[in-house]
Amino acid sequence: MLASPDQEFHLMPTFNIVTPEQHLIPALRAKINNKTKPLGALGRLESLALKIGLIQGTLTPQLTRPVMMVFAGDHGITQAGVSPYPQAVTRQMVLNFLTGGAGINVFAKGSGMQVRVIDAGVNHVFEPHPELTDAKIGMGTHNFFIEPAMTAAQCEQALTRGAELASAEINAGSNVLGFGEMGIGNTSSAAALMSVLCKLPPTHCAGRGTGLDDAGLKRKVVIIEQALRHHQMDGKDPLQVLATFGGFEVAMMVGAMLGAAERKAILLIDGFIATAALLVASRIAPAVLDYCVFTHRSDESGHTLLLQQLEAEPLLDLGLRLGEGTGAALAYPLVQASVNFLNDMASFESANVSRQNST
Amino acid sequence: MLASPDQEFHLMPTFNIVTPEQHLIPALRAKINNKTKPLGALGRLESLALKIGLIQGTLTPQLTRPVMMVFAGDHGITQAGVSPYPQAVTRQMVLNFLTGGAGINVFAKGSGMQVRVIDAGVNHVFEPHPELTDAKIGMGTHNFFIEPAMTAAQCEQALTRGAELASAEINAGSNVLGFGEMGIGNTSSAAALMSVLCKLPPTHCAGRGTGLDDAGLKRKVVIIEQALRHHQMDGKDPLQVLATFGGFEVAMMVGAMLGAAERKAILLIDGFIATAALLVASRIAPAVLDYCVFTHRSDESGHTLLLQQLEAEPLLDLGLRLGEGTGAALAYPLVQASVNFLNDMASFESANVSRQNST
Repeated sequence: MLASPDQEFHLMPTFNIVTPEQHLIPALRAKINNKTKPLGALGRLESLALKIGLIQGTLTPQLTRPVMMVFAGDHGITQAGVSPYPQAVTRQMVLNFLTGGAGINVFAKGSGMQVRVIDAGVNHVFEPHPELTDAKIGMGTHNFFIEPAMTAAQCEQALTRGAELASAEINAGSNVLGFGEMGIGNTSSAAALMSVLCKLPPTHCAGRGTGLDDAGLKRKVVIIEQALRHHQMDGKDPLQVLATFGGFEVAMMVGAMLGAAERKAILLIDGFIATAALLVASRIAPAVLDYCVFTHRSDESGHTLLLQQLEAEPLLDLGLRLGEGTGAALAYPLVQASVNFLNDMASFESANVSRQNST
Repeated sequence: MLASPDQEFHLMPTFNIVTPEQHLIPALRAKINNKTKPLGALGRLESLALKIGLIQGTLTPQLTRPVMMVFAGDHGITQAGVSPYPQAVTRQMVLNFLTGGAGINVFAKGSGMQVRVIDAGVNHVFEPHPELTDAKIGMGTHNFFIEPAMTAAQCEQALTRGAELASAEINAGSNVLGFGEMGIGNTSSAAALMSVLCKLPPTHCAGRGTGLDDAGLKRKVVIIEQALRHHQMDGKDPLQVLATFGGFEVAMMVGAMLGAAERKAILLIDGFIATAALLVASRIAPAVLDYCVFTHRSDESGHTLLLQQLEAEPLLDLGLRLGEGTGAALAYPLVQASVNFLNDMASFESANVSRQNST
């Protein structure tokens, strides 16, 4: 193994993410409690409506032009044999996204979301396509078993480009962005990021990914353990951790999340990889979490623990482990429903419905 | 207290519900496994797609004209003080449904479902309205603390009418029906039905309903306990149990569920009351369960235990406890998504995506 070079971050974009103002809480609560339903009867949708009202700073929030940003990238760590699928599946799936045949296409369509596919660093040169954004940082990362996945400059470039892409969607009218990904090998990248940043052993972070058997999972854990020992990081510098173990799609997603939160968009967080990207983002700017809706609990084994680390309670728990943003697309109708009840349900007064008797 | 009169059932409609043919299981599994995703990666949506394919007997199921049937009725047991809301709220909420201001209106609209409101026995005479079906069995049930809630003839009439109403929706093109309800006092009715039919103590079945405090819940449990002692039922005759403790809206929902399953529709089961109605239906014709999608786990305390009794695992767990069919309407996009992925996702072959390496 080569020693990790010193990673120096000079061009790191800065993100000015502010926690939403809290002064609307009483008015939002009053509006929610005045709807024709028993107090609290809409459970999680009530806290979600409150959160969205605070993010937008209004009693009448609106969700506009929802977009699912799907970031794709290849991973050098696949050379170590961490996935049962060949690396070529990353580019094959990107083409599948562009022809509309993947899970994310089907679910985003059902939920009224647009899909935007971003080549953050797939090991393939794609023909131009109207739904594909070329943001390629490189032809896949280096193998982090041997050397850092990317240079500091590449990491900064990915963050900056991600923020620009999120900003472009917001400029086009979006105020709710989903984050999905495709990248054979990226559960290993995400597990390594989680392990270093949360100080948890790889065996608690790594799972079967696309379907490793017991022997494959054991090998994956050993590879991550050895890579962690090799790079010897204390996790205090999230950028260095990201550059060492991240994927280009993961780093670009981190930038997109930070850029979206800076612009006060609502962030729909998908499964294990997207949550690992958010973990990195939250170590750069903790207030990013104030803009997040956790959409589902993945069946990937590290996800439950990762959600706990972020004190996050997701909306869905359906045993999904496909990535691509599919969980976020499936949960989006619930997010829309929370806004709809806040705006469209009658109040006790407007509907002439009697209130609870005083007891 | 008066003694329970002998309930005699002469005109009970019969339901010929058959378990779906199972021979398509291998072909459905093969189709699901051939989609461009890791094996099993869509979790619960995969088993749901399989179930719907079997119900419809096809590899290409379709959901057509989804309708939420909301049954409303009043309950004599409210005289015993089991709800913090006055009985008038039942009719007030029916009017709210008809003007589109209730939770179920908002969520059904968001999910692309029609709402059909059925007056099964509200203590009020409504003006005719195009979205209201007059199926009134009576001006509310009797108080089951004192006497059976309804006569055998009324119970049979409610079942027959419910089945007719479900059949009418299916004749109009629906193959997926949601079941919701409104009736102040009906969590007490549902808890009593559950207690007798599952042989569980009322304290395990009764919850806070629309928002009872600790003292109110204690009183509700005592009232149900005394009513159960009074009527002394072994639970072997589900019709007699239904007539004794049910509401008109509950009995009509039982008939609608049985009628819908006989016609091979998909049944979307909402929360505590709808699941209690299904419990009764399943004691009349167990195969009704083969047509059910359990949409959510209610925050009403007896619901988790009731779902266990039916070996049901619901799709959503969001702390909802509003009734009206709201959980079913919120979960419907997931049901649609399961059908969509089965029909619209590309296969490995069609998308030229490599399969998993043999390991």
